[in-house]
Amino acid sequence: MEKLEQLYEGKAKKVYKTDRPDEFIIEYKDDATAFNGEKKGSIGGKGVINNKMTGVIFTMLEEKGIPTHFIKVLSEKEQLVKAVTIFPLEVIIRNTAAGSICKRLGLEEGLKLKSPIFEFCYKNDDFGDPVINDYHAIAMELATAEEIEVIREMTFKINDILKAYFLEKGINLVDFKIEFGKTNDGQIVLADEISPDTCRFWDVETNEKLDKDRFRRNLGHIEDLGHIEDLGHIEEAYEEMLKRVQA
Amino acid sequence: MEKLEQLYEGKAKKVYKTDRPDEFIIEYKDDATAFNGEKKGSIGGKGVINNKMTGVIFTMLEEKGIPTHFIKVLSEKEQLVKAVTIFPLEVIIRNTAAGSICKRLGLEEGLKLKSPIFEFCYKNDDFGDPVINDYHAIAMELATAEEIEVIREMTFKINDILKAYFLEKGINLVDFKIEFGKTNDGQIVLADEISPDTCRFWDVETNEKLDKDRFRRNLGHIEDLGHIEDLGHIEEAYEEMLKRVQA
Repeated sequence: MEKLEQLYEGKAKKVYKTDRPDEFIIEYKDDATAFNGEKKGSIGGKGVINNKMTGVIFTMLEEKGIPTHFIKVLSEKEQLVKAVTIFPLEVIIRNTAAGSICKRLGLEEGLKLKSPIFEFCYKNDDFGDPVINDYHAIAMELATAEEIEVIREMTFKINDILKAYFLEKGINLVDFKIEFGKTNDGQIVLADEISPDTCRFWDVETNEKLDKDRFRRNLGHIEDLGHIEDLGHIEEAYEEMLKRVQA
Repeated sequence: MEKLEQLYEGKAKKVYKTDRPDEFIIEYKDDATAFNGEKKGSIGGKGVINNKMTGVIFTMLEEKGIPTHFIKVLSEKEQLVKAVTIFPLEVIIRNTAAGSICKRLGLEEGLKLKSPIFEFCYKNDDFGDPVINDYHAIAMELATAEEIEVIREMTFKINDILKAYFLEKGINLVDFKIEFGKTNDGQIVLADEISPDTCRFWDVETNEKLDKDRFRRNLGHIEDLGHIEDLGHIEEAYEEMLKRVQA
């Protein structure tokens, strides 16, 4: 199987065609961005870690009945996936309040939500990935009502599986963002990745953040942002998460 | 029946207790604000017009089976209503794209939506009335899942009734914001008002705006805002709408 031309380059991954019409190759990058691209950097080893971790987690989800785009890991930074058309929706589940929702709705970081919050964002950098609901998605033809129902049902199942899976590894799954795609034969499958780039992972005992928030909040040479905690040791957090997932 | 102490003062109305525990008096004001309070002013005759128009429309909705808080008009600017506790939700229906949604999602003003967009905003000035969905409302205990279903069903019915009602008067109902409350005996009813303050009304023939957008876009002495059309004749637009509703 041959890697052909690049189809797409995102912030953290590149997607390539192959000589098979139903298969793509995803290449994970070390690049990291935050705050809708305002903060740019790189996290050493991230591409390798996220490629491996997504492989392990997507395999586990498939075994539990969730259809995904994942086929197999090809190399340190590459995996083979089913060719899909991605829905322009960021699908988010929040079990605990953290990040943008705190600022947007005045919730305290760490608040355990009475019931999980399911959110769609319209995946569009020009508009800052705004929060939308089913009606916006349908009116803007981002997905049909039937597709949204499939996506919602799968997302809540994925949340149940992932919460239990990470809890066994001493991790509180605070929230996560996933994406869905449609294969050439019309099946809706989980796509994209599941990694410290796309989830908030807090250690159950210490509440230590083991995810991209360490990058978002790594002030580096910036001296004074006052209200936010300065976090470093980004690579170590990603490595710790991979170790726990592989254990 | 006696008007007692003021319970609440909003941007466009005051609410008073009465000597009856199940009845409030609403007093309509001429004050107008826009852009989350950044623009302030007053529209001559607005209080009188909105009081009358809401009386006519709520009476019509009651006749068509929608429970409302409205009891009767008391004076030029006052109406008697059932005492309710307002849900902290702005409930919005958009039939045509206009206003905030255009900027937020990149839709062109005037775009006829394939299906109406139903939106909740969290009624909280400190956070700029952010768009939320059912899950946020439930997790934040703004309403229960059952209450949301009642509100949603009533809102779509109200949209059907209002669209037909205004079309007969030569008006395209572009969008509107309504609020719901719960009476002392637990009934969910339409509350607040329906007026050019809370709806976008466009003349069917000319697309002329007959609503608060004339205030939002009245530049007055401000010289250059470039991209937005300068609109005046605000009072006349409100009067024209009342005339059509009373016809």
